[in-house]
Amino acid sequence: MQRSPKGEPRAVVLLSGGMDSATCLALAQRDGFEVVALTVDYGQRHRVEIARARELAQARGVRDHRVVRVDLREIGGSALTGTAEVPKDRPAAEIGSQVPVTYVPARNTLFLSLALGLAEVVAAGVIYIGATAVDYSGYPDCRPAFLKAFENLAKLATARGLRGEPVEIRAPLLALSKGEIARTGVGLGIDYRMTSSCYDPGDDGSPCGRCDACLLRRKGFAEAGLVDPALRTLG
Amino acid sequence: MQRSPKGEPRAVVLLSGGMDSATCLALAQRDGFEVVALTVDYGQRHRVEIARARELAQARGVRDHRVVRVDLREIGGSALTGTAEVPKDRPAAEIGSQVPVTYVPARNTLFLSLALGLAEVVAAGVIYIGATAVDYSGYPDCRPAFLKAFENLAKLATARGLRGEPVEIRAPLLALSKGEIARTGVGLGIDYRMTSSCYDPGDDGSPCGRCDACLLRRKGFAEAGLVDPALRTLG
Repeated sequence: MQRSPKGEPRAVVLLSGGMDSATCLALAQRDGFEVVALTVDYGQRHRVEIARARELAQARGVRDHRVVRVDLREIGGSALTGTAEVPKDRPAAEIGSQVPVTYVPARNTLFLSLALGLAEVVAAGVIYIGATAVDYSGYPDCRPAFLKAFENLAKLATARGLRGEPVEIRAPLLALSKGEIARTGVGLGIDYRMTSSCYDPGDDGSPCGRCDACLLRRKGFAEAGLVDPALRTLG
Repeated sequence: MQRSPKGEPRAVVLLSGGMDSATCLALAQRDGFEVVALTVDYGQRHRVEIARARELAQARGVRDHRVVRVDLREIGGSALTGTAEVPKDRPAAEIGSQVPVTYVPARNTLFLSLALGLAEVVAAGVIYIGATAVDYSGYPDCRPAFLKAFENLAKLATARGLRGEPVEIRAPLLALSKGEIARTGVGLGIDYRMTSSCYDPGDDGSPCGRCDACLLRRKGFAEAGLVDPALRTLG
């Protein structure tokens, strides 16, 4: 395991500013890692999450936070980077039943590639990603087989891989429901007011309350018997 | 195989503006594909190659050319994106013997991720990448095993993969020497004046003639019994 100059092992955490990646950050810190946080500014319409990621990283004492710009609008193909309508008020049974228009083509492959490059540069042996497979929204690149395939790729893709030092991909939320994620994060002191999950927030950053991400988040907090502090503040 | 509205099959070609990717473009066109070209502007100091890629795409009749900006300077770790010295005048035996400082961490993983996203958006079934394994400069992500692993990942990473429509990764230069690449491209009408290989070009875009990329290119043209038109023009 890689250790930082202070002797702590180091991990790269993909931090989107949403509740899943915030919980991942807390788990990486609980696991004893010095966290290097990576946020990808990919031209998403829900740009408020980048500001939330900055606040969160600061509040959690992350000393190294990189924000990398990638202009995915040039590639297109998603409601999250284009002007197509974000679906609202979909019934729970429909969410996750097929690949939705909010799917950003190969997004997690791209995010993990950037995290892998950063892991190589900062000598981190682990990457945390907040992929979930229980309440997921039908994205192909959130499945366990995908993550395993990336871990295999990472062994072959890097100079550290050549030296026999693989990078481990950890997706600790994979088997958790949104309710379990909320409970985990609250237990680890995450202030979910500092997170934004909405795909289509208002100009003031307030969640729409009706996109898939808002509906899943609301369901999660309800299941956990918790009140979403972001809704209480902003809604 | 995916076909374009005109009935041609479609391929994404990673076009850096160097001689390898230019040759790849010619091979994809020879193979009958309608090419969608993808250039990544990653903050490389050899920015002239982006202008070359634009000229080349236009000269070869590529109607869809995307230039995606990714700021890899935020991640660092390479002489190609930072201020560290690019090695000069290395003996041929040394080039390729270890991972050099010009290695950009996980660059091909990143480039292929972007190409994969674009392949999904434009319905391309093939990605061409100009990776070479013969005269290569010691980069881990140019090896056949890496490319196979990415192809496997691509099956799992995308909506089209879920539908049972995999994306094929073609690296037609893998088994070719630089000399064979030069001969292939000349035979297919590539004007190598429109390519730039140098890692550390002058302000006017002229090649330094001394970095690994320049030395490999010179060796290649010499082996092929050809004169490098870029050197004739600019040197």
